[in-house]
Amino acid sequence: MDGTTQDHSTTHDHSAHVGYSGDKELIIKRLKRAEGQVRGLQRMVEEDTYCIDVLTQVSAATRALETVALQLLDDHLAHCVAEAARQGGDIADQKVKEASAAIARLVRS
Amino acid sequence: MDGTTQDHSTTHDHSAHVGYSGDKELIIKRLKRAEGQVRGLQRMVEEDTYCIDVLTQVSAATRALETVALQLLDDHLAHCVAEAARQGGDIADQKVKEASAAIARLVRS
Amino acid sequence: MDGTTQDHSTTHDHSAHVGYSGDKELIIKRLKRAEGQVRGLQRMVEEDTYCIDVLTQVSAATRALETVALQLLDDHLAHCVAEAARQGGDIADQKVKEASAAIARLVRS
Amino acid sequence: MDGTTQDHSTTHDHSAHVGYSGDKELIIKRLKRAEGQVRGLQRMVEEDTYCIDVLTQVSAATRALETVALQLLDDHLAHCVAEAARQGGDIADQKVKEASAAIARLVRS
Repeated sequence: MDGTTQDHSTTHDHSAHVGYSGDKELIIKRLKRAEGQVRGLQRMVEEDTYCIDVLTQVSAATRALETVALQLLDDHLAHCVAEAARQGGDIADQKVKEASAAIARLVRS
Repeated sequence: MDGTTQDHSTTHDHSAHVGYSGDKELIIKRLKRAEGQVRGLQRMVEEDTYCIDVLTQVSAATRALETVALQLLDDHLAHCVAEAARQGGDIADQKVKEASAAIARLVRS
Repeated sequence: MDGTTQDHSTTHDHSAHVGYSGDKELIIKRLKRAEGQVRGLQRMVEEDTYCIDVLTQVSAATRALETVALQLLDDHLAHCVAEAARQGGDIADQKVKEASAAIARLVRS
Repeated sequence: MDGTTQDHSTTHDHSAHVGYSGDKELIIKRLKRAEGQVRGLQRMVEEDTYCIDVLTQVSAATRALETVALQLLDDHLAHCVAEAARQGGDIADQKVKEASAAIARLVRS
């Protein structure tokens, strides 16, 4: 990862490079919980847990990942897209196109 | 609809009030097509069309509405959210929160 | 639509040909409501309604169509798939494959 | 897990108790891959990977879980629901209701 290519900010504070810097601990905590859910799913399948109970847990894990995605998007809009809008020009247009494409992938996944 | 409450722009051009002004014709055309699909669904059900064929058409209509939603969001980010970001302050924060909530409703609908 | 190809039932009652026969009125009522929502969306766009309010209504219409899809699927499983399972053989396998494909389209639309 | 409560089959072969018995290895393999993707996401966040790249990977992990869910559902319809349909009566109705509820959770997650 080359810091230069992504440093659209005017600061040298590394934690300011990404939109989710302020929510990093929260997001990692949620991802760890999602990982635990997916590991729990493997145990359920190995123990021949009833299909519907496994499915309920898959829905819970999917929802946990969606919550992470929505947090990332919120942070991205509030920081990266907003910062680009203040700069204006091509970078602003590009950031909106990129965010829209990510939203489309999320809505259709 | 009181124009005053929503006029965050500095222009009096009415068509600039909403993010999707430039795509209005396209969006209405797509909504008319979606309406045609939903009317077609009623005919299919009245004529006892096979369940799976009706379901395929429901998925197509749902996808058409999603395409409209993604277009509206893209326009909203490119205009309303970007404009608020340039103004900064509370209005910028509020616009991002509002957009994030709309994205969450879309992802979970 | 050739009635012969879809007549897997042993009755000549035409209304029994499809899984949703018992819920036909309910499904048409819901589709009419969804149609009204999509027409309302066109009015909202024509009147330059604020993007987020249009998006909220798109989510409502999408959800209405999803409710119809889930009702159709429930009826299809309870009648067509169940009937095929009782007959057994290839027709049973084919009906499950077909239902699974419809569910996949729904989950990913 | 009390085997008695879920033993709707007429066999004593434990591996036949659940619909996904024949796909157990495949499902566990896919869950392991999904677990790897979620662990990879934690690394990406810890290394301040650009928001959009993290989001793309969240969508991939979500899609992997959906594939598992669709496989489980397919197996459940082909075995558990079909078996209940052959038995008929209350158990058949209950299995369809239960499957429909699982599909609804999946569509709306």
